[in-house]
Amino acid sequence: MYTYPFRPKTPYVAVDGIIKVFDKENFLGIVLIERKNAPLGVALPGGFVEIGESVEQALAREMKEETNLDVDIVRVFGVYSDPARDPRFHTVSVTFECVATGKPRGADDAKIAKIFRLEEIPWEKLVFDHSKILRDFLYGKRE
Amino acid sequence: MYTYPFRPKTPYVAVDGIIKVFDKENFLGIVLIERKNAPLGVALPGGFVEIGESVEQALAREMKEETNLDVDIVRVFGVYSDPARDPRFHTVSVTFECVATGKPRGADDAKIAKIFRLEEIPWEKLVFDHSKILRDFLYGKRE
Repeated sequence: MYTYPFRPKTPYVAVDGIIKVFDKENFLGIVLIERKNAPLGVALPGGFVEIGESVEQALAREMKEETNLDVDIVRVFGVYSDPARDPRFHTVSVTFECVATGKPRGADDAKIAKIFRLEEIPWEKLVFDHSKILRDFLYGKRE
Repeated sequence: MYTYPFRPKTPYVAVDGIIKVFDKENFLGIVLIERKNAPLGVALPGGFVEIGESVEQALAREMKEETNLDVDIVRVFGVYSDPARDPRFHTVSVTFECVATGKPRGADDAKIAKIFRLEEIPWEKLVFDHSKILRDFLYGKRE
């Protein structure tokens, strides 16, 4: 091991998942959760990365915990790091696009987990910067 | 502000830059630095994200500090988070592809900053997982 003169102070790292749910070839919608803890509201499923796990492992764990779905990762969709995006403290979100089949079931930090058709996303209830993330996802990223 | 029952423990967040340097339309190579601090060796320029800055701001700041170049971001190339990738502690790297013109000059954590043609990348001297990152960059990502 190397010794190191300091421990850096950096933002926290989290993962969020844009889970596209399919029934065979049919796209059903994406999964959103209703949060059990503050900030209350609707959100993409996600959570903090633990020390000792990769972001891909954290994503799989959090999606399973909050939605009971086993997801396949398509790609890193984006990294969201505006210091004001999380009202609690500075959190960097590594946001993944992923796919799954089956019916989500909320648990852990998710009171409810449910598939939303893209036309019925409850934009006004989304917390953090998840409306920006989903706008970027649906309409393309803009600076 | 929200109150929150705990402070999460997550890996540290850093940024690294794959800087492609151009002289007008001519691609000259990418920038690597020789590190001043442990782990000693050759690396992509990069550093830790500070609380209160976005990853894009951190990237611009670190590239300027270590290479004196003003870079334009092309995209997030990848997120590297293997717990063993940094011998000091668990660090998640948000790795950007970016472009710049001009001559790099090492400073801060970089003893030297220099343009390397792709054929002269000193693979055996690269620290962290930067040989993996550059292999992914040159040959495509594989699982």
